[in-house]
Amino acid sequence: MSAYPKSAKPALIIGSVAIDRVATPVAQSDNILGGAASYASIASSYFAPTQLVGAVGGDFPKPFWKKLQKHDIDLSGLEVDQEGKTFYWSGKYHENFAGRDTLEVRLNVFEKFSPVLTPKHLQTSFVMLGAIMPSLQNSVVDQFVAAKKKPFVLADTFDLWIHTARAELERLLRRLDLFVINEDESLLLTGERNLVLAGQHLRKMGPKSVVIKKGGHGSLLFHRDGYFSISAYPVTKFIDPTGAGDSYAGALIGYLASVNRTDFAALKKAVAYATAVSSLTVESFSVNRLSGAGRAAIDARLKTLTEITRF
Amino acid sequence: MSAYPKSAKPALIIGSVAIDRVATPVAQSDNILGGAASYASIASSYFAPTQLVGAVGGDFPKPFWKKLQKHDIDLSGLEVDQEGKTFYWSGKYHENFAGRDTLEVRLNVFEKFSPVLTPKHLQTSFVMLGAIMPSLQNSVVDQFVAAKKKPFVLADTFDLWIHTARAELERLLRRLDLFVINEDESLLLTGERNLVLAGQHLRKMGPKSVVIKKGGHGSLLFHRDGYFSISAYPVTKFIDPTGAGDSYAGALIGYLASVNRTDFAALKKAVAYATAVSSLTVESFSVNRLSGAGRAAIDARLKTLTEITRF
Repeated sequence: MSAYPKSAKPALIIGSVAIDRVATPVAQSDNILGGAASYASIASSYFAPTQLVGAVGGDFPKPFWKKLQKHDIDLSGLEVDQEGKTFYWSGKYHENFAGRDTLEVRLNVFEKFSPVLTPKHLQTSFVMLGAIMPSLQNSVVDQFVAAKKKPFVLADTFDLWIHTARAELERLLRRLDLFVINEDESLLLTGERNLVLAGQHLRKMGPKSVVIKKGGHGSLLFHRDGYFSISAYPVTKFIDPTGAGDSYAGALIGYLASVNRTDFAALKKAVAYATAVSSLTVESFSVNRLSGAGRAAIDARLKTLTEITRF
Repeated sequence: MSAYPKSAKPALIIGSVAIDRVATPVAQSDNILGGAASYASIASSYFAPTQLVGAVGGDFPKPFWKKLQKHDIDLSGLEVDQEGKTFYWSGKYHENFAGRDTLEVRLNVFEKFSPVLTPKHLQTSFVMLGAIMPSLQNSVVDQFVAAKKKPFVLADTFDLWIHTARAELERLLRRLDLFVINEDESLLLTGERNLVLAGQHLRKMGPKSVVIKKGGHGSLLFHRDGYFSISAYPVTKFIDPTGAGDSYAGALIGYLASVNRTDFAALKKAVAYATAVSSLTVESFSVNRLSGAGRAAIDARLKTLTEITRF
């Protein structure tokens, strides 16, 4: 698991760790490992040593610990509130996976979660901020600023924060190296009707680079040095999209940390790896396929992506 | 205009020639040249000598004749019914171009249109059947069969025929070399929920190869020798999608005719050229941008497509 290249720096993932219940139009699964940081840190762990900062309750199941530990993820930043309960999310996808409804959210220990970085965390040069409250995302950046550190910072968000915490989100955008957002949210946040314009608009809001994720249609990268568009991996065994975006972002930060580079060429390769990794995630509930696939399966998908897009 | 490569064979385009009125969420344009065969034959003419088979009325405006003639399109198969009127279509696109409503259709001379191929048409080896009634599309194939000819046949369709002429359409599918269909229609016709499965399913229905067009998300090619996925050209000046699919198909058949090849590599390149050409079409009403762009603009877009998809 841990034969990382010599160039590899550690990656730090900050976000939710959850217990999920997911229903799709064809199946459902209960009491499964979820949360952005779970998906992202497993994805990152395929490329670089990975540290997780999050919070769980005393009820967090042993097999979930073991699943994360299996990937050599440094869990010293995963706070355990023995008296509390783990963040619980239940959702149901619409027909054809066109959107989803959240059926139940119990924030539990996540309600008072406020990431506090240790000196070890503050040494990391590649940081992913999962889609937690923008004020908390900013508080992480503040801690790096206070420590006079300037890591490469990637952040994700979701529509709730665009509606309810826009000012904090805009403040965050001005501090980011890479902002990762999905198609609909990119249009919502910018007011544009066209994804190319939305990506250009988002870069003007602050982030050095922007990735717009289009699910089954691939993704777009907007960078100072150019534009890059990648097709999706042709998934035919589509089970559950939960965590696809989180594992995408985790693979992105993990790959960048593994090569210790953030230039356009490295970002394009990172986006390609992220595409390969997230295509595995959707082939099962929870992190099962992602965790079980192994690096060779990821590399095989990267090769396929290269082949099916060349002309 | 007519410096075609030595390998180039003539392409034959059969379909509608129309006078359109188009309204988009931001603008509208009236009495403009429309019809699948108009868009397709201009697109094809950038690559190979192109013959058009269609019908117009005595009202078909001189400037429209001139526009087609400017591209050296052989219009000897464009029947003129001096007593009749040209096919008229008026449509209005929804907000964000998510679908459109047909406001008015007057078939006029197109109501009794039944393509009759001349010996010269029957010599062509590359044929595109626009989305006319499947029985008429089959009647074209019948004429080639009667003449003991086996051209490469590409056909397009649209949802009306899936609903109203399914048996004839299924008969056509079994006779096609290449079937070009858009995303929603591919799901409608196959009952699949996934485009990769839809493409595979369509090939089982008969066509040797299948292209699924995803508009602003690019397109997918399903071929015996493999799968190919191409991103869209990043259009930012989006004016009117009318004719995008027709010019896509026209560029496809024109490119194949120009190289006189139909193998997987040639089809991938044809799909890439089709992507470049259709990205021009949407930048104006009618064929204006398509007709005015010139081959150099198409080649420049092909180069851009290569660059923005490599990693």
